[in-house]
Amino acid sequence: MTDPDLPQPLDERALDRLFHKARTMNGYLDRPVDEAILHRIWDLVRMGPTSANQLPARLIWCRTRDARDRLADCVSAGNADKIRNAPVSVIIAMDLDFHEQLPWLFPHDDARSWFADDEEARAQSAFRNSTLQGGYFIMAARALGLDCGPMSGFDADKICAQFLADQPRWHPNFISTLGYGDMSSTFARSPRPDFDVFNTIL
Amino acid sequence: MTDPDLPQPLDERALDRLFHKARTMNGYLDRPVDEAILHRIWDLVRMGPTSANQLPARLIWCRTRDARDRLADCVSAGNADKIRNAPVSVIIAMDLDFHEQLPWLFPHDDARSWFADDEEARAQSAFRNSTLQGGYFIMAARALGLDCGPMSGFDADKICAQFLADQPRWHPNFISTLGYGDMSSTFARSPRPDFDVFNTIL
Repeated sequence: MTDPDLPQPLDERALDRLFHKARTMNGYLDRPVDEAILHRIWDLVRMGPTSANQLPARLIWCRTRDARDRLADCVSAGNADKIRNAPVSVIIAMDLDFHEQLPWLFPHDDARSWFADDEEARAQSAFRNSTLQGGYFIMAARALGLDCGPMSGFDADKICAQFLADQPRWHPNFISTLGYGDMSSTFARSPRPDFDVFNTIL
Repeated sequence: MTDPDLPQPLDERALDRLFHKARTMNGYLDRPVDEAILHRIWDLVRMGPTSANQLPARLIWCRTRDARDRLADCVSAGNADKIRNAPVSVIIAMDLDFHEQLPWLFPHDDARSWFADDEEARAQSAFRNSTLQGGYFIMAARALGLDCGPMSGFDADKICAQFLADQPRWHPNFISTLGYGDMSSTFARSPRPDFDVFNTIL
């Protein structure tokens, strides 16, 4: 633990920001989220590992009033106001034909051929790896001082029609609000299980 | 960015550890990974958000020679030696009946009933949310000074037979080696796309 030759853990403030004190937000402070910070989030997200560097996530960031209202019309009743009132919401979509990008994303091997004739393997890999990227997005936003409100209660067909009409091979995975969190908007923290409940050491 | 009333970003050292300089490891230093640090990883992972606090991931940590050898026999040829030589490898599995735990994990609402009669919704939600937890695992390990080698090239049926025989509703999602990384084991970093390649701002 204290071996000076090994990488040192992040300090407690950083662990609090990422994990212990971070919360899913239902409302945000009235502070602007400018375009530059979206680029900074991506600069972190893109570094996270995906299988054969697939990077299947496609992110649609809704900042304008019009885009946020259109997205709010695609989600469940309980989520619509959260999106209307958040400064930014992002659709984390996945490209079911991500393999077409592998010749330049993974130049070490012919990874495109692993997926070209296997639609089911593509769908599974796109889902798994774009979700990992969604996890990196949550951690990246928190690392930069912002907060998120991820949600999966939405009408995928409506999102496809409203936002992905010219990308028929993209499919929405989940969506998230983004901004500087208002802690008064959070619910009571749900229980978190001790190690032995869901972990086994062999 | 410099508004003193807003949470401050993590410092560059922390962002390097989590994202910029973190790498997928194919080999590890000869340093022990004790059980206490596995508990510390879980203490972070469990705080990450999942839909309705489902926490569907079930983690099987392989530390003994026997467990690592058995896991190595379940993976593709290129991955077997990585697992044999890593101090720890973890199977990130998902509970397809996670909804049975929701009465205590999500006491605010009857979330169990949302999933009880919809096996397909359960499978999708277990996959999405256990993968998010896999992303939190990667970030948590890095935050504590360790490194990972996530991989999806394995025989799911073999893992079920070898490790999950008494848990027929658990299914492996992905696996990862874990330890103190040996940077000399890493490959050249694959390309990372600029913002405009996979992002759209509306």
